Amino acid sequence: MTMAPTNPDSQFIIGVDLGGTNIVVAAMSHDGAHLLGMQSAPTLAAEGAESVVRRMAQMVATTIDTVVRETGVSRDAVVGVGLGAPGTVDRKNGVVLAAPNLRWSNYALVERMTALTGLPVRIDNDANCATYGEWWLGAARGGTNVIGVTIGTGVGGGIIIDRQLYHGSSDAAGEIGHITIDPTGRRCGCGNYGCLEAYASGSAIAGRAREALEHDETSTLLALVNGDLSQITAALVYQAAADGDDVALEIVRDTAKFLGAGIANLLNIFNPDVVVIAGGVTQAGDDLFTPLRTEVRRRAFKSVTDTCRIVPGTLPGTAGVVGAVASYIAQTTGRPPA
Amino acid sequence: MTMAPTNPDSQFIIGVDLGGTNIVVAAMSHDGAHLLGMQSAPTLAAEGAESVVRRMAQMVATTIDTVVRETGVSRDAVVGVGLGAPGTVDRKNGVVLAAPNLRWSNYALVERMTALTGLPVRIDNDANCATYGEWWLGAARGGTNVIGVTIGTGVGGGIIIDRQLYHGSSDAAGEIGHITIDPTGRRCGCGNYGCLEAYASGSAIAGRAREALEHDETSTLLALVNGDLSQITAALVYQAAADGDDVALEIVRDTAKFLGAGIANLLNIFNPDVVVIAGGVTQAGDDLFTPLRTEVRRRAFKSVTDTCRIVPGTLPGTAGVVGAVASYIAQTTGRPPA
Repeated sequence: MTMAPTNPDSQFIIGVDLGGTNIVVAAMSHDGAHLLGMQSAPTLAAEGAESVVRRMAQMVATTIDTVVRETGVSRDAVVGVGLGAPGTVDRKNGVVLAAPNLRWSNYALVERMTALTGLPVRIDNDANCATYGEWWLGAARGGTNVIGVTIGTGVGGGIIIDRQLYHGSSDAAGEIGHITIDPTGRRCGCGNYGCLEAYASGSAIAGRAREALEHDETSTLLALVNGDLSQITAALVYQAAADGDDVALEIVRDTAKFLGAGIANLLNIFNPDVVVIAGGVTQAGDDLFTPLRTEVRRRAFKSVTDTCRIVPGTLPGTAGVVGAVASYIAQTTGRPPA
Repeated sequence: MTMAPTNPDSQFIIGVDLGGTNIVVAAMSHDGAHLLGMQSAPTLAAEGAESVVRRMAQMVATTIDTVVRETGVSRDAVVGVGLGAPGTVDRKNGVVLAAPNLRWSNYALVERMTALTGLPVRIDNDANCATYGEWWLGAARGGTNVIGVTIGTGVGGGIIIDRQLYHGSSDAAGEIGHITIDPTGRRCGCGNYGCLEAYASGSAIAGRAREALEHDETSTLLALVNGDLSQITAALVYQAAADGDDVALEIVRDTAKFLGAGIANLLNIFNPDVVVIAGGVTQAGDDLFTPLRTEVRRRAFKSVTDTCRIVPGTLPGTAGVVGAVASYIAQTTGRPPA
């Protein structure tokens, strides 16, 4: 039996960002002022859930060691673990319902992590966490109603309403990547046609670049991959665009139009005060954001565009752990973090 | 100076549904159990705002007379007026910012109605009110997170989150008619291309029927209008579809597909437990709802369709006044009506 310190500002919470490729762990002070003990390791999902969870618990233990060593607080000052998991989660029962990237289904993650760490654990969806992190300490700070769009392999999303994450009626809200932007368009991995994700995800961007290069032999992108189209990635497209390559710039501008159509929908529906866009796509900078904001203004009502800022995320690499801690605080106190 | 009765269940609130064509007024008991003194009159917007507001205030006065006469309560038992107005409203300041149907802009409706009725007045958007009415006493009763879609001349919407209307950051949320369902599609009145409203509103349905009839001489729709295509209305399309007319049935089924694409987006984003569809289009019954539900299942995630019912509204003609009263209660107490 341990007693938590009475001053919550001297408490620490461990944030875990469980991704399909990497696990990131860090400790945060309850007031958001201190981030320490950050580390990452490969997920190695193929080794199975038990192996992944043991690795996470070990990382949590060493991060707690770092907190104790660097701040001089006792171990009791670390009060819990917030964990962002990919896929659909059941927060109340602490279960990952379906995480295709990990090949997990109906996995009782909270029960297992609690047993291994001896700490209270709360889970949330990873894109929700990334959005909440950008709201708490990043680009969406100060916002009331916020939409987060995270562009990685897929397109994820999070919705904040009145400073709290909105989860919907069965914890499945925020699938912003699966807004239809063209009802007869490209087939999406989800089975639908014309989803935003089928156009604007990292893999869709790379795929569209490959298609464009089949009809163009002058692009510097070809040199970047020594003519091997299979090596094209979204990151290379942003790099070539920054260097002024016409094909890459066109891909980025088209991406801005697709994202703009999806985000205009979100503005007309939600009337948010901030839209924060995170992920590798933000490397494209103004080449992306300038045409994106233009497209949103063309499509959405003036009254909603005038009151909304559309900004790149400012916590690459840490939004997930920061937001996992923020979600832990919200779930255990019923209030958003201060 | 008057004293309100201490038991709120013996209080009455007047609901006003101000439309571009008609004004509807009724009284409701605070507990939602009694609706009485309902009346309607033409809006006659061309006579100007002052004339419209005087007519509304007169209707409120005669409805209060009815409440007193029929229930035996004193006039003090009528505690306020909830008013649904078309267009964008600023609830906090009681101003109709822009109501194109009425040709109003920046009109201080609450101040004027309070002066004329001597009662506290709260306003809200009319589509929000219709949704909240269906939630309080209609088809969406018992729901927690609810989307309302109202199909009339245009396509309006309302969003309920955790039993409260969601208004967004500048009172402009819920423009569900302006979800883009085809980014290169039909021009919408709002200036965007391919909005849901450009396909599924009453006027769009009539327009699509006219286009179809230009290439078809066998449809019974032609007989219904004596060959005069300008007389085609959405209501006639539903009637002909109910009678088995192939052209009309195709229009209804296409409408179901357009609505289905828009509603699938809303399910993936909001994960609501109820979607309630109101307006004339519900006359089409299963001819609309069966293909609509199929289209939503085709496009949205199984986890969100399994937990959501899509239903026609059950308060035609009264959802607006019922919801105006519900919004009054929510705005004055900070809680949804019981």
